[in-house]
Amino acid sequence: MDEVVSVNPVSGERHPSGFYESTLDEVAAAGEASAAAAAWLAGQSLSWRADLLDALAASLEADAETIIATADEETGLGVARLTGELRRTCFQFRFFATVVRDGGFLEASVDHAYDSPMGPLPDLRRQLEPLGPIGVFGASNFPLAFSVPGGDTASALAAGCSVVIKAHPAHPLTSKVTFEALQRAALSCGAPEATVQLLFGLAAGVALVEDPHVTAVGFTGSYPAGRALFERAQSRADPIPFYGELGSVNPLVVTPLAAKARAQALGEGLVGSVTLGSGQFCTKPGLLFVPSGPEGDAVLAAAKDAMTHFAGASMLSEAIRDRFDDGVAQLLSVPGVALVARSANAATASGAEGVLVVTDVATLRGEHRSVLETECFGALAILVRYAGEGELLASLESLDPALTFTLLAEEGDPYGPALLDVGRRKAGRVIVNGFPTGVGVSWSMQHGGPLPAATSSLHTSVGATSLRRWLRPVSYQSVPDEWLPASLREDNPLGIPRRVDGALVL
Amino acid sequence: MDEVVSVNPVSGERHPSGFYESTLDEVAAAGEASAAAAAWLAGQSLSWRADLLDALAASLEADAETIIATADEETGLGVARLTGELRRTCFQFRFFATVVRDGGFLEASVDHAYDSPMGPLPDLRRQLEPLGPIGVFGASNFPLAFSVPGGDTASALAAGCSVVIKAHPAHPLTSKVTFEALQRAALSCGAPEATVQLLFGLAAGVALVEDPHVTAVGFTGSYPAGRALFERAQSRADPIPFYGELGSVNPLVVTPLAAKARAQALGEGLVGSVTLGSGQFCTKPGLLFVPSGPEGDAVLAAAKDAMTHFAGASMLSEAIRDRFDDGVAQLLSVPGVALVARSANAATASGAEGVLVVTDVATLRGEHRSVLETECFGALAILVRYAGEGELLASLESLDPALTFTLLAEEGDPYGPALLDVGRRKAGRVIVNGFPTGVGVSWSMQHGGPLPAATSSLHTSVGATSLRRWLRPVSYQSVPDEWLPASLREDNPLGIPRRVDGALVL
Repeated sequence: MDEVVSVNPVSGERHPSGFYESTLDEVAAAGEASAAAAAWLAGQSLSWRADLLDALAASLEADAETIIATADEETGLGVARLTGELRRTCFQFRFFATVVRDGGFLEASVDHAYDSPMGPLPDLRRQLEPLGPIGVFGASNFPLAFSVPGGDTASALAAGCSVVIKAHPAHPLTSKVTFEALQRAALSCGAPEATVQLLFGLAAGVALVEDPHVTAVGFTGSYPAGRALFERAQSRADPIPFYGELGSVNPLVVTPLAAKARAQALGEGLVGSVTLGSGQFCTKPGLLFVPSGPEGDAVLAAAKDAMTHFAGASMLSEAIRDRFDDGVAQLLSVPGVALVARSANAATASGAEGVLVVTDVATLRGEHRSVLETECFGALAILVRYAGEGELLASLESLDPALTFTLLAEEGDPYGPALLDVGRRKAGRVIVNGFPTGVGVSWSMQHGGPLPAATSSLHTSVGATSLRRWLRPVSYQSVPDEWLPASLREDNPLGIPRRVDGALVL
Repeated sequence: MDEVVSVNPVSGERHPSGFYESTLDEVAAAGEASAAAAAWLAGQSLSWRADLLDALAASLEADAETIIATADEETGLGVARLTGELRRTCFQFRFFATVVRDGGFLEASVDHAYDSPMGPLPDLRRQLEPLGPIGVFGASNFPLAFSVPGGDTASALAAGCSVVIKAHPAHPLTSKVTFEALQRAALSCGAPEATVQLLFGLAAGVALVEDPHVTAVGFTGSYPAGRALFERAQSRADPIPFYGELGSVNPLVVTPLAAKARAQALGEGLVGSVTLGSGQFCTKPGLLFVPSGPEGDAVLAAAKDAMTHFAGASMLSEAIRDRFDDGVAQLLSVPGVALVARSANAATASGAEGVLVVTDVATLRGEHRSVLETECFGALAILVRYAGEGELLASLESLDPALTFTLLAEEGDPYGPALLDVGRRKAGRVIVNGFPTGVGVSWSMQHGGPLPAATSSLHTSVGATSLRRWLRPVSYQSVPDEWLPASLREDNPLGIPRRVDGALVL
């Protein structure tokens, strides 16, 4: 097998990582060990599990300096951003610890025996239980928060599952140092060595999705890769859930009233959101609808000014930069798309320019629509001018679904209700007067949406309810109290919220 | 297209139904109309939706005489059973009305803006919203409770979705009369005509799964049919959830202590559960593990006696009866499987005998295991003799997952904990000292399990939480109160349970 190479996208330097791509035998062994670990983990208490999550956070913090320096070497994202991302990553583990201690995620329900209109019904109790070994694919654009120690890993462990991670090739050493921090903490809590495991290489990733012990997969990455792995997961003898958080061209609408009220701030804000993290966020606003006429012209002028002053984007890899350059070139070849501004080029090995283009609704809905509706990672802003609400709504209705839908509007804006209605149908998260590029870890977060945003619109990959992906319900009928899980015993020894005879009890 | 034929499985008489198989154009028109209906339904209040469900129940009750007579003509299940099934079907609609009024199924969550450890987070609110048009496949074995007016239809309407139903060919006129009752009630509530629609024919069913407007499918039926449709659903340009409740060979274990304590009652009870509804329940215990030695012999003797006195099974159709006869013949050709008893044959066109066979763990785990592990609809009981806990557990571990797992044991039975542990991993519902053939409609019911029991182990097709299959989460960030759905407004005008800043509030 080939040795995995660690590349510095700023300097272009390449170093052997010391890791080799995992063999198929290694994947099979990982699956088997993970199944044994999952059985052990499923037997631990909620409080033990919450303590484990806290310990994982503390262990990552203890290695913060090494982790941040290594991630900066491999991604060029900078110490400030990576410090914030590590803080988020640790917060995420601790947040899931509170979710686990709360216990509501079990959806525990107790129905006592009663004479129903259907005749006598027996005592029946239900809760969600861990699925088993979970396959996780690290993403390139968040080397901490959506990679080895990221949300999929944290939520799967919080659900009581074991995890086998396929490292992203763009940051093998970051994967290694974060994995080591996780494993050290897991061992210190008495967890089996196979609680978290790490694999390298494309073939290993495919084998992981097909491994008979793996019960579900979490993936964050591109549409083509995610779709191909989704199909592998569905073609198994026993298909398993594949939660792919894929690409998204996120619509953003500036209403005429908003354009009139605050063109300068909006133009700057749009470009700020588009260029954040060098435009390598899946929540980046991809299509920015701006009204025609003088109010919209002012937004365009402010955006042009902001993009002209952008310092350029240092991207995660030369390959991503090359795809960005290709995407921009293809876009500019579409009749009806005009260049408005190009920024400086970040002077790095993976450096790119920021680009602002403008087009109209007819072009967006025309024969080249697939070019405009393909996600393009990088600091690219596509402004779409629209003439009135009817044209805007028709255009939005024809778009693919997305992760987010953003509305920049005024109080009592007449465009509000109809746009909210499109947004809720087309996206997982609807934002008013904010930008979509921040994805907080919280109880109410929804990160996902209908395809192509995600392979399943029924779940989220961020926030408290992301645990639901790794759980399945089990009912216990007339099971004696001493044989029931603690969470379902009559006296509720864990003190968790439950439905009792249909009524929620705290 | 061919005319659909209505067959009486008792007399063998065949009548034209007056229905023709739906054309592909009709399916496409149904999908389009369903999308418009779904948009309308999503805009109605929870109280309107609950009233609709109550009205559907009342309408079915008003037509009870016609419905029961028609269903008896087409299924031969008898007036008593069908009266009970209609009662259950109506109860199910009313039960979902209480679930809708409760509002907890929305999983509404409100996070106010706050300064998190990650920096300031905006106001964020989340709830589950209806997916859109749902395709439903009626099952043959419950012509009411799992067919046109069954659980999939009721739960999808409760979730706020529209429904397009593919009628089961075994009861076209029952499908018609129940559909008419549903449609009359829907119209009386002001719902669009396309709230519930009915299609006929195999090709229409396939087209329904592939229709671009359909957002998810509920199916109850055989493994081969369900698996084929699942693959169609996953091969769409936009794959959709396919909830197939498929076949199941449900294990049941009699412990040595239980056999010793109550051999006679257990032997009779086993046969009663196996022959209930002519053995045409997906929860029928398929493999009955009975200890070797004198205690187990006594259970076998009692079961033999009970099966010998069984009056025979009149099955749902001649085709199902023929498959049963083939299954029994194939089973009896397996070396190591011995016939214990055959009952009388029900003297109907679709009549069959009840059959009791015995085998051992070695045969079950041997080269013919697939024959023993294939679900066989009908009054067939396979007793598997086991010698001790080790052999029993090894055998159970090697079985396919199932809908149910039943344990007949004594208080403090030493077999209990290990068997409970296998059961919860292998099945959706674990039963102690009861029989699995009753599936109550309740908050805590779980009807499903890992493949081959169901195509998704994450959900249930019966009970309150079956709504979750037809819902997807949407988050609203910084959305002004007047633009929010009522369920998420600050003052909680619907009075539903919500999580507010992470804490459950009733």
